[in-house]
Amino acid sequence: MQQDTKTHRIEAFSDGVFAIAVTLLILEIKIPDPTAIAPRGLAAALFAIWPSYLAFTISFVTILVIWAHHHWIFTAIKTSDLILIYWNGLLLLFVTFVPFPTGLLAEYLLHPEGKVAASFYTGTFLAIALAFHGLWRHASSGGKLLGVDANSLEYKNAMRITGHYRLGPPLYLGSFVLSFLSESASVASCLLLAFFFALRGWRRNASNP
Amino acid sequence: MQQDTKTHRIEAFSDGVFAIAVTLLILEIKIPDPTAIAPRGLAAALFAIWPSYLAFTISFVTILVIWAHHHWIFTAIKTSDLILIYWNGLLLLFVTFVPFPTGLLAEYLLHPEGKVAASFYTGTFLAIALAFHGLWRHASSGGKLLGVDANSLEYKNAMRITGHYRLGPPLYLGSFVLSFLSESASVASCLLLAFFFALRGWRRNASNP
Amino acid sequence: MQQDTKTHRIEAFSDGVFAIAVTLLILEIKIPDPTAIAPRGLAAALFAIWPSYLAFTISFVTILVIWAHHHWIFTAIKTSDLILIYWNGLLLLFVTFVPFPTGLLAEYLLHPEGKVAASFYTGTFLAIALAFHGLWRHASSGGKLLGVDANSLEYKNAMRITGHYRLGPPLYLGSFVLSFLSESASVASCLLLAFFFALRGWRRNASNP
Amino acid sequence: MQQDTKTHRIEAFSDGVFAIAVTLLILEIKIPDPTAIAPRGLAAALFAIWPSYLAFTISFVTILVIWAHHHWIFTAIKTSDLILIYWNGLLLLFVTFVPFPTGLLAEYLLHPEGKVAASFYTGTFLAIALAFHGLWRHASSGGKLLGVDANSLEYKNAMRITGHYRLGPPLYLGSFVLSFLSESASVASCLLLAFFFALRGWRRNASNP
Repeated sequence: MQQDTKTHRIEAFSDGVFAIAVTLLILEIKIPDPTAIAPRGLAAALFAIWPSYLAFTISFVTILVIWAHHHWIFTAIKTSDLILIYWNGLLLLFVTFVPFPTGLLAEYLLHPEGKVAASFYTGTFLAIALAFHGLWRHASSGGKLLGVDANSLEYKNAMRITGHYRLGPPLYLGSFVLSFLSESASVASCLLLAFFFALRGWRRNASNP
Repeated sequence: MQQDTKTHRIEAFSDGVFAIAVTLLILEIKIPDPTAIAPRGLAAALFAIWPSYLAFTISFVTILVIWAHHHWIFTAIKTSDLILIYWNGLLLLFVTFVPFPTGLLAEYLLHPEGKVAASFYTGTFLAIALAFHGLWRHASSGGKLLGVDANSLEYKNAMRITGHYRLGPPLYLGSFVLSFLSESASVASCLLLAFFFALRGWRRNASNP
Repeated sequence: MQQDTKTHRIEAFSDGVFAIAVTLLILEIKIPDPTAIAPRGLAAALFAIWPSYLAFTISFVTILVIWAHHHWIFTAIKTSDLILIYWNGLLLLFVTFVPFPTGLLAEYLLHPEGKVAASFYTGTFLAIALAFHGLWRHASSGGKLLGVDANSLEYKNAMRITGHYRLGPPLYLGSFVLSFLSESASVASCLLLAFFFALRGWRRNASNP
Repeated sequence: MQQDTKTHRIEAFSDGVFAIAVTLLILEIKIPDPTAIAPRGLAAALFAIWPSYLAFTISFVTILVIWAHHHWIFTAIKTSDLILIYWNGLLLLFVTFVPFPTGLLAEYLLHPEGKVAASFYTGTFLAIALAFHGLWRHASSGGKLLGVDANSLEYKNAMRITGHYRLGPPLYLGSFVLSFLSESASVASCLLLAFFFALRGWRRNASNP
């Protein structure tokens, strides 16, 4: 029971960080300056900052999907150890970092150097995917932290999940590489990936009712 | 019990987002610049930013009322599925967005383009009302997620709640339409709607002791 | 048990708001501008913003003490009703507002109009004291929400607490009135009051082991 | 059980403050101004703010390690008293303060007055180490709050932990003194200390499975 409590507090802390990171994103959308909107009006000024809304939405959806997957793997994880705490800490470090590249992308998406901003943005998501993969790999390996035997059905199910999560790093690496060719394609791929992982969660859950 | 825990963590995450969004609102009230207050003094400068206090208060009360209703519907929701998680995510996306239109309204309420700011502000609340309606519609439909039979008394009670929540989208659509005619009437209607839904919650709770 | 859960979620939400409000205070301390510190150096610039540290500390300690008292009264409150939720909401509205007068006081304490800033600051604490008093008055009156009989010993204990909390509004009214005479005396009284209520909590707890 | 709940709410509140403080750190990293990056480009501008990433990372890791140790000592602490609440409050006050010296270090690390910023930064960590030491000293002394007898094995284990935590203040005092000689050595020592305390946690946990 004590160990259960331990996992509970890690989850609560992580939930706090996810919730705050996702809510701080809004601070990166800047209110148009009343002295500068004159020629075309406020409606045009609010329309012109669409990269801010786009970056906000992609980052929000991505963090939400990561949170949902974090939620699922922690329903499987029964005990914690220090390495788990620090893998989780590395994941949270990168999640906490997200508002900065989000603001950067909003500011620079339409700038001649948009590709640099897109590389920085997708590079952050690649780092998150690697940390998530490392977290689950450590948590699932051998079944010890899952509280299951390595020959059990539950362990085989867990290994199937591992197969799904293995896709994260190469796919986000693809987004990162794409950012050197086209910032719009790269950013669009991030949005697609968020929906892709949302749907994979769906199919996985549907198959284990 | 595992599913109960699942709902618990969605509630905890949502509570976090509600609490942070409501607290970040204060960052939109800007401290008067000491070099600019000279002619009429600090008291006058603090009085002159009353649209900031008004926008802060309306957004705070609205989010608080949404939180209270979210709290009530989740006491009825017994299990979660992926679609519920993503409806909830959409609701949180719009709630998280609130500090931006709040700051916009504070900045532009007395500006010639105040109507645009009021449209943006009420439009955000309309989006929240639609997401909340969608969330409850999915959660209540068929009684499955409520853990009740479709012929039971509890289900009929739930359907009565649906009737109440059906009012949200058209009423906030009214506020939105009103913003094209009068920014003050539109903003005032948002405050009234928050109290209206607070009182409906009251009557509903009073009738099901 | 459902009602217990209800109180639990109010406490969790309130804790979130208290924790965020207290942490956002730090954003009101501004990093000295490297281009402006030249004549006397960084150490002098860091020393010169002592009103920021003072305002931060007083607001932090005050919110912490309010949180601790909120914590105690909610160990006594067994069930909630809508009026309790909205009294609590009013309290949270004022607590959420604290970073603004804190930043204002930090900016204007040494300014000729420091008295106005101190009135605004102590006025916010007065509003908090009134909301807290209203919350406890509603929660304790008749013993219903405390789950105790109006003739029981527990009810008499609760009434004794009411006696303590009755002191809050007049004492903070004193700080507010004092701000028209001397900003330093008024601000100092806020710090003293925070320690006073911290110690009253101590004695009360010590007498009911 | 009531006392258990009490400790639970202190932990929840503390977790909230830790999570928010750690997430607010990101706001200290400023997005490069598009009008100022022209000569060398965005990639160079993003590289040039490496002190921001460094300060962010050190502060994040340090707060995470403090949180992990806070988590461990609260699994041992069974009841709370007012002095514990206020020691904990003092610890949270200093943790909440961290984003300010973090932003200061980011801004001034490469400035001729970098030593002053490093003293301020390490001085904050010294204050945290002292508050943490005081918290544990009060919590463990006599075994009362741990719910163990002063002659028990558990108490001896707790005393061994005290031995570990006694290292915190002198080591951070070392970092602080070092800041007067070399800002880089001082900052590097903070990163090393965070990893050192992370590993000590490891060994302690490994020895009490």
